[in-house]
Amino acid sequence: MKFRNFKMIGYVIYGRGSFNQLDEILAPNRKGEAPVVFLVDHFFRDKEAFVSRIPLRGKDELIFADVTNEPKTKYVDEIAGRLKAAFGSVSGIIGIGGGSTMDLAKAVSLMMTNPGSSADYQGWDLVKHPGVYKVGIPTLSGTGAEVSRTTVLTGPAKKLGMNSDFTPFDQIVLDPELIKNAPVNQRFYTGMDCYIHCIESLEGTYLNAFSKSYGEKALELCREIFLEKDNWDDDSDDKLMMASYAGGMSIAYSQVGVAHAVSYGLSYLLGTKHGVGNCIVFDHLEEFYPTGVKEFKKMTEKYQVAIPQNITKGLTDEQFDAMINVAFGLAPLWENALGKDWQKIMTREKLRTLYEKL
Amino acid sequence: MKFRNFKMIGYVIYGRGSFNQLDEILAPNRKGEAPVVFLVDHFFRDKEAFVSRIPLRGKDELIFADVTNEPKTKYVDEIAGRLKAAFGSVSGIIGIGGGSTMDLAKAVSLMMTNPGSSADYQGWDLVKHPGVYKVGIPTLSGTGAEVSRTTVLTGPAKKLGMNSDFTPFDQIVLDPELIKNAPVNQRFYTGMDCYIHCIESLEGTYLNAFSKSYGEKALELCREIFLEKDNWDDDSDDKLMMASYAGGMSIAYSQVGVAHAVSYGLSYLLGTKHGVGNCIVFDHLEEFYPTGVKEFKKMTEKYQVAIPQNITKGLTDEQFDAMINVAFGLAPLWENALGKDWQKIMTREKLRTLYEKL
Repeated sequence: MKFRNFKMIGYVIYGRGSFNQLDEILAPNRKGEAPVVFLVDHFFRDKEAFVSRIPLRGKDELIFADVTNEPKTKYVDEIAGRLKAAFGSVSGIIGIGGGSTMDLAKAVSLMMTNPGSSADYQGWDLVKHPGVYKVGIPTLSGTGAEVSRTTVLTGPAKKLGMNSDFTPFDQIVLDPELIKNAPVNQRFYTGMDCYIHCIESLEGTYLNAFSKSYGEKALELCREIFLEKDNWDDDSDDKLMMASYAGGMSIAYSQVGVAHAVSYGLSYLLGTKHGVGNCIVFDHLEEFYPTGVKEFKKMTEKYQVAIPQNITKGLTDEQFDAMINVAFGLAPLWENALGKDWQKIMTREKLRTLYEKL
Repeated sequence: MKFRNFKMIGYVIYGRGSFNQLDEILAPNRKGEAPVVFLVDHFFRDKEAFVSRIPLRGKDELIFADVTNEPKTKYVDEIAGRLKAAFGSVSGIIGIGGGSTMDLAKAVSLMMTNPGSSADYQGWDLVKHPGVYKVGIPTLSGTGAEVSRTTVLTGPAKKLGMNSDFTPFDQIVLDPELIKNAPVNQRFYTGMDCYIHCIESLEGTYLNAFSKSYGEKALELCREIFLEKDNWDDDSDDKLMMASYAGGMSIAYSQVGVAHAVSYGLSYLLGTKHGVGNCIVFDHLEEFYPTGVKEFKKMTEKYQVAIPQNITKGLTDEQFDAMINVAFGLAPLWENALGKDWQKIMTREKLRTLYEKL
């Protein structure tokens, strides 16, 4: 049995207002005149009070990233190509936003130094060279993308990450003030991404004491803020940010499970956003995660979030097949959830029935 | 208010038997013919079954480190000097042992590339150059030295660490099998180091949500293994190893407190080992940590460990003064424990009375 040697992010800064230290953090990482490129979630396009705090210097560039859809390999290649044409090389890529922006920033950083298309690197340990210096600054918490060794991308053939030791950020800035004004539904869906992956990780077969300690802490924090507390305050933001970090770390020696695998299919075919897709699927997974699903339903009730229904209605056989193929492409997730014999438990027919319910 | 930008260790591998992957982990870090140097706690001198598993290659050297006393700057300088004279440079320094060996390995790595004596770097951010590649492999858990940014050393003038961003390990190997055969008392004292620093960190004034989440997890694990469980088994080792890691991480945005400050004085003057010293002091700190001390006494009772008493009996005024000076040199610890006005609360007289009780 071989254990994964887990690459950590380089630096973490955590604290209310720590975003104000960004200029100082970047300074020693600037390489002469080469600009720092800020990839900022387009949600902030008209939020001038925030945008004016981004420490642009010299030839630095600010790009509002279109994350209406989750990042595509084409979009990654386009941004990296444009930056290479304009500057040759850059000092660093700074992602400011939710999980999609984090992933986009990691992917663009890698494509500044690796030849070809990002689609060539969708998989495990295919990336050849370290990317340029990269920083992740979440403005939505829950995905764990700030600490993960992947960057989920939709390519021409698959939805799969660039998993590698070169993928984690060199620096993350965890400032709970930045997630304060997230839209309530968005915050819920992203928070549930964390909750769901804790359940999947803690009930999975891959778990060990390292991942368990992180997963339990993240779950406890999610329960506290989404179930026990009666209002959302600064303390909730502080804890959600830590839950996301700990939830992400728990993946070191575990895996997500059924909800994530099935949700990837929805996302690939219908463009369903990851957080929403997970909720749509998890809502129907009593068979696999009875306690977790019950608790999840309590949280949706408390937050009065209406999980979308009937989104697969009217799809063709080909379309169902496409989703099933994507979901079954994620063998480690199924093995973690259902054990080595997962294929006997989750057949194509059974998965089709599940997709039809969604 | 400024937040610390916390440097993480490079890689973590956690798992029973992960020590067997050490050869593979070192391979890409070997620089031509330059040897890897293994600094191994002298406790293992006659443990051939273990020593034979250390993956020596080529000119690699194995040094049994004398950690009868906690590491001194002189000892660090001597080892680094000898290695530089023999090899010029080395591929890496691998520390295998308890907290003293971890600290020794970190310090020797730094002194392979920094001029002068390690005593010149006792303090905060004085180290100028990255050390050589360094790996920490704990065979005792509790100190948190495997993740810390310091390396506590006794120098000619003070007991103080080389605190810097260059200090953390590039790699740690957390294999719970390695702590299985630790002597019971030693395991207790080292485990209590973790317990005590969790209490000091969680009850300190510096705490934030990041450190709290780690501290709470570590404390929960300590309680489970030292209080709730009735026998010590593999699961206890798994959890103690994680408690030590999480306890160490919790120090990122917190500090230890009264027990550590007072214990440093004992250690400086009498050579009292850190874990034992903490226990001797903590046993008398009801005033500052009432609940923690009560719980601590339950654990000592359960483990039938007799905490040494009257170790300061017969000391001279000069000797008491020396301990008081060392303890008061650690202002951040006192400030964390007692707030900005700590000097009004803890006077020299009061501290002298405390030392006399020990």
